Amino acid sequence: MLAAESGSSQMSKGIYMHAIGVDIGGTKIAAGVVDENGKILAQTRIATAADDPASIDRSIAQVCATLAQDYEIGAIGLAAAGFCSPDRTSVQFAPNINWREYPIAANVRALLGLDVQVPIVVENDANAAGWAEYRFGAAHDATDMLMLTIGTGLGGALVINDQLVRGRYGVGGEVGHMRVVPNGHTCGCGHDGCWEQYASGSALVREARAMAIKQPAHAQLLIDLAGGSVDAITGPLVTTAAQQGDQFSCSLLSELGRWIGEGAASVAALLDPEVVVIGGGVAAAGDLLLTPAQDAFLSSLPARGHRVEARFELARMGNEAGIVGAADLARL
Amino acid sequence: MLAAESGSSQMSKGIYMHAIGVDIGGTKIAAGVVDENGKILAQTRIATAADDPASIDRSIAQVCATLAQDYEIGAIGLAAAGFCSPDRTSVQFAPNINWREYPIAANVRALLGLDVQVPIVVENDANAAGWAEYRFGAAHDATDMLMLTIGTGLGGALVINDQLVRGRYGVGGEVGHMRVVPNGHTCGCGHDGCWEQYASGSALVREARAMAIKQPAHAQLLIDLAGGSVDAITGPLVTTAAQQGDQFSCSLLSELGRWIGEGAASVAALLDPEVVVIGGGVAAAGDLLLTPAQDAFLSSLPARGHRVEARFELARMGNEAGIVGAADLARL
Amino acid sequence: MLAAESGSSQMSKGIYMHAIGVDIGGTKIAAGVVDENGKILAQTRIATAADDPASIDRSIAQVCATLAQDYEIGAIGLAAAGFCSPDRTSVQFAPNINWREYPIAANVRALLGLDVQVPIVVENDANAAGWAEYRFGAAHDATDMLMLTIGTGLGGALVINDQLVRGRYGVGGEVGHMRVVPNGHTCGCGHDGCWEQYASGSALVREARAMAIKQPAHAQLLIDLAGGSVDAITGPLVTTAAQQGDQFSCSLLSELGRWIGEGAASVAALLDPEVVVIGGGVAAAGDLLLTPAQDAFLSSLPARGHRVEARFELARMGNEAGIVGAADLARL
Amino acid sequence: MLAAESGSSQMSKGIYMHAIGVDIGGTKIAAGVVDENGKILAQTRIATAADDPASIDRSIAQVCATLAQDYEIGAIGLAAAGFCSPDRTSVQFAPNINWREYPIAANVRALLGLDVQVPIVVENDANAAGWAEYRFGAAHDATDMLMLTIGTGLGGALVINDQLVRGRYGVGGEVGHMRVVPNGHTCGCGHDGCWEQYASGSALVREARAMAIKQPAHAQLLIDLAGGSVDAITGPLVTTAAQQGDQFSCSLLSELGRWIGEGAASVAALLDPEVVVIGGGVAAAGDLLLTPAQDAFLSSLPARGHRVEARFELARMGNEAGIVGAADLARL
Repeated sequence: MLAAESGSSQMSKGIYMHAIGVDIGGTKIAAGVVDENGKILAQTRIATAADDPASIDRSIAQVCATLAQDYEIGAIGLAAAGFCSPDRTSVQFAPNINWREYPIAANVRALLGLDVQVPIVVENDANAAGWAEYRFGAAHDATDMLMLTIGTGLGGALVINDQLVRGRYGVGGEVGHMRVVPNGHTCGCGHDGCWEQYASGSALVREARAMAIKQPAHAQLLIDLAGGSVDAITGPLVTTAAQQGDQFSCSLLSELGRWIGEGAASVAALLDPEVVVIGGGVAAAGDLLLTPAQDAFLSSLPARGHRVEARFELARMGNEAGIVGAADLARL
Repeated sequence: MLAAESGSSQMSKGIYMHAIGVDIGGTKIAAGVVDENGKILAQTRIATAADDPASIDRSIAQVCATLAQDYEIGAIGLAAAGFCSPDRTSVQFAPNINWREYPIAANVRALLGLDVQVPIVVENDANAAGWAEYRFGAAHDATDMLMLTIGTGLGGALVINDQLVRGRYGVGGEVGHMRVVPNGHTCGCGHDGCWEQYASGSALVREARAMAIKQPAHAQLLIDLAGGSVDAITGPLVTTAAQQGDQFSCSLLSELGRWIGEGAASVAALLDPEVVVIGGGVAAAGDLLLTPAQDAFLSSLPARGHRVEARFELARMGNEAGIVGAADLARL
Repeated sequence: MLAAESGSSQMSKGIYMHAIGVDIGGTKIAAGVVDENGKILAQTRIATAADDPASIDRSIAQVCATLAQDYEIGAIGLAAAGFCSPDRTSVQFAPNINWREYPIAANVRALLGLDVQVPIVVENDANAAGWAEYRFGAAHDATDMLMLTIGTGLGGALVINDQLVRGRYGVGGEVGHMRVVPNGHTCGCGHDGCWEQYASGSALVREARAMAIKQPAHAQLLIDLAGGSVDAITGPLVTTAAQQGDQFSCSLLSELGRWIGEGAASVAALLDPEVVVIGGGVAAAGDLLLTPAQDAFLSSLPARGHRVEARFELARMGNEAGIVGAADLARL
Repeated sequence: MLAAESGSSQMSKGIYMHAIGVDIGGTKIAAGVVDENGKILAQTRIATAADDPASIDRSIAQVCATLAQDYEIGAIGLAAAGFCSPDRTSVQFAPNINWREYPIAANVRALLGLDVQVPIVVENDANAAGWAEYRFGAAHDATDMLMLTIGTGLGGALVINDQLVRGRYGVGGEVGHMRVVPNGHTCGCGHDGCWEQYASGSALVREARAMAIKQPAHAQLLIDLAGGSVDAITGPLVTTAAQQGDQFSCSLLSELGRWIGEGAASVAALLDPEVVVIGGGVAAAGDLLLTPAQDAFLSSLPARGHRVEARFELARMGNEAGIVGAADLARL
């Protein structure tokens, strides 16, 4: 049940109890009812079409209506892969879905029915996932966090003084586009040398393939795992090989970790976080990635010896982080 | 008069009215009474010795007592060039004064007399100066600010969501030690490639002298201003020459501005500020520095065209920024 | 007439007179009879297929036989876009034609007839073109030359002590793959940061398009010349716009020139050449490229003031440089 | 006996037999009689004063006269730490001795007596040492060599097509000033990012000390060897610790080797040498340096797999290389 404006005290209590979080992807929408401890009580998902925002609106409304049948809901949070307006009503721009100054919260509200008065907010998906780690996951006991989501690209989230950093215009936390190498690798964003080009799954695969061509003997296990084709080397294969003790693959993860740690040290110069959380698909490598990242971080940290050093943690919230974080942010 | 615990309502009103700000330098202490609009009502200064923290304590107490004779004081803020504890009581470490885990607030309180119960806090001096710009200066209408203080080195301050970023352990805002060039110029901090090595008065002088040796014909005016000696070229001389239209000096400021702007774009990727304030001695170059900085910022800004761009401003609070900021932070 | 082993004294004189140069491209073969002053007396060309080395052999033999009908020929030089064996008989490897340890000289000799005993040699095409500049063009009065051929990629040739630098194994002069930026732009060769990625027509186009996206207002003329499409911007359009005084395009050429000059200074640290010759399609920009290249070279030259500085020259031999150089090298 | 112009056939035979090589250092002169196999038959040395070129002339003449008492001498070669004129008569400039356009060969000849007509030539000392390796040492069977002398700085020599590369104006072979990092470490030469700043004993010491401060626990053995003081860490101590199996010191040598190998790969792109000879004091580390250098070279070598790869060798001629090379070059 979605708490309406005319809600009883029971309903307003609901605001503090259950919220729906909706993680809007390019091909599917995943949503869940999240309690105030970050636990998902019910979950659903639905396929969707990236090229049709209106259809996405309808899918969102549909999953919300479904989940609200069995739970009293106090708020709805939408996690969107795009720049969100600071007032949390619209997606300003998205790279993969055709959202341009798109009033997604109002649209969903209209579809749900005008009597539904619970807060509906939209948040950047990486920020939502980071918030989930901050509230219920690897950083639950921290006040200042740098979250790095290392998938194909490098996303992230920042929490400072217990507050999510959305940025003045909703574009904060784009850590992957901090420049780490002047005149470096060209990024999809049009600039050169972005951190993402050195600390991401794509970077790992690029280096793995290049090194496998240069040093095929050393890369033999990795090439075998890839069915004999250098072009078939993937990030998960590097992790698999490394976990089997393959020195070549361990070196690749170590180099990736070095870029993660060195970049994190630059962030720490600015923000002095308490914890750096490493998530995303590449985090499956675990300590093979975390240890070199932390070593490089400590080696590069300014004023080391005169400060408390941030600790590194693996993310704990898994793929549901976006749902949980969006729901929790909607309650605030 | 320093409001004591037994203060009347008049005294507690004073908390919201006047505070003392003390800017502790290596050779002198400057202090002032600051009203709630950031105006300095009275000011004093005293010479001091960097190698004697106890003597500095006494000097601080002395200037506070002097200023308190004519004003009712609700709080005292100390601006110190060092890492301050998050609880704002101690200086953890300072590069130029022999403070190590030093309880400066308690010491000053003891010297002022145990019946003085006004808050006494210590803040990093760059943070205090930045706070003054945020509250009363170039960023007074903004919620999110990056302040860059470009003197011999590169200091800074960050305000996010209307809050000063002190960092979890009091070491936030060390913007000058974000790495911008891997394997770059060695920094005094022991690391390589820090932003400070490219965007500071020292960098300007280093480049000016190197270029003057390489291209003496182009550098003629600048060398003349330096009395014929390349080694006598200073930052202010570069600014003077540039203001006279000297192309060589304009290029040097332009290159400095480029590094400022490109680094600021990296910070903007993380924090999406509303305004970038440029202060410090080098800011005397005005638009000769600000324009290339802004151009480079815009050229390097990720997702440009899909976001509101931060504006650039020159600092307005002058040398008293530390006093004003420390006083104002003490009131919070 | 191809001088046979049984050649009269008239024929042996021919060795010092006329030679055939053959420039083997991916889609066509251009050949000419070249006198000892580097003048082309007759010229012919023929289309060819890159994927059929045997057919290329036949085409070469055909153009040689045709040209030999009217001239007494003392030597034949083949210019090939690949790594040539130090004994000048084979192409070891080529990126665009399927030559692998390919005995091209012997093949052509067999097709021409076993009684033809004139020397037939194969040389790298960039080396041949550079040799033509050294012997008859922009460096004709020099003993030590760096030639840079700036087309889509960055090729080059080196002459030291009046000798062409082929390298111990025939792979010398690959100047475009000197690394100028650690962890820089990925090169087609599989490495990162090669000079070619910063000093080539491809680099010019990459930067032009990226900057046009970032600063569309500044790039207006260039975008207009490209029919309104950033993706249609080409190197010749940049040159055209720059020649019309377009500041944006001049800056792009200036930046390209800077990378050329800075890299050339590194080569000069090793080799101390007398002249740097700039050729290839991008050299059409003339002084708009040459002047910034030379400025950057001088700014970056080690020990400047204690040495004679290499001069910069535009190439003079045009598209026939490969023919002339191959012919002349065959006579040696 | 110095062979005079009126020399008998016995004397002219001497030209092909014995030559004097003189290695002119800042504090001493070492000289020897060298036979045509590079063997030193007699040797002497004398202290000297760097600030008095005339006194150095006299010392040179004196050691030559002494050595000539017992041997018939056909030529005299002087190895000087400076830029030498291409005609091998003068030192154009030297950083440590006050030679400016200094006619050292004529001066020495005048002091030896006008009837002495043997050739007297001056060569750059690094070139002379490299030539000794090429003729009689690690590269004696090669035609194309890159010699790297890794002492405090990074010197070198190039032999191409069996010829020493002096450069058009006598300034060739300054390999240490090839730029490897744009905006990198400032070099004593006034430029930034020179190879010498990354591949030299000074670089090793700088990194060792910086890392020892950052990671004192890991650096314990090295700090102990340095008597407890990070500032007392030297290159030889790093080598000693590495030879004892110290992981931290091995990593430092490995990183040094990486820069050596990566830079050598850039040289190989230009020159395709047959052998890279590593000499100088740092070469005492042997395989601990050579192996990572070679690995990095191979990883960075363009077109690997399609070329023969240069081999790496340690220098063999020791401290006498300058004497031997200067003597041998004087015979040419």
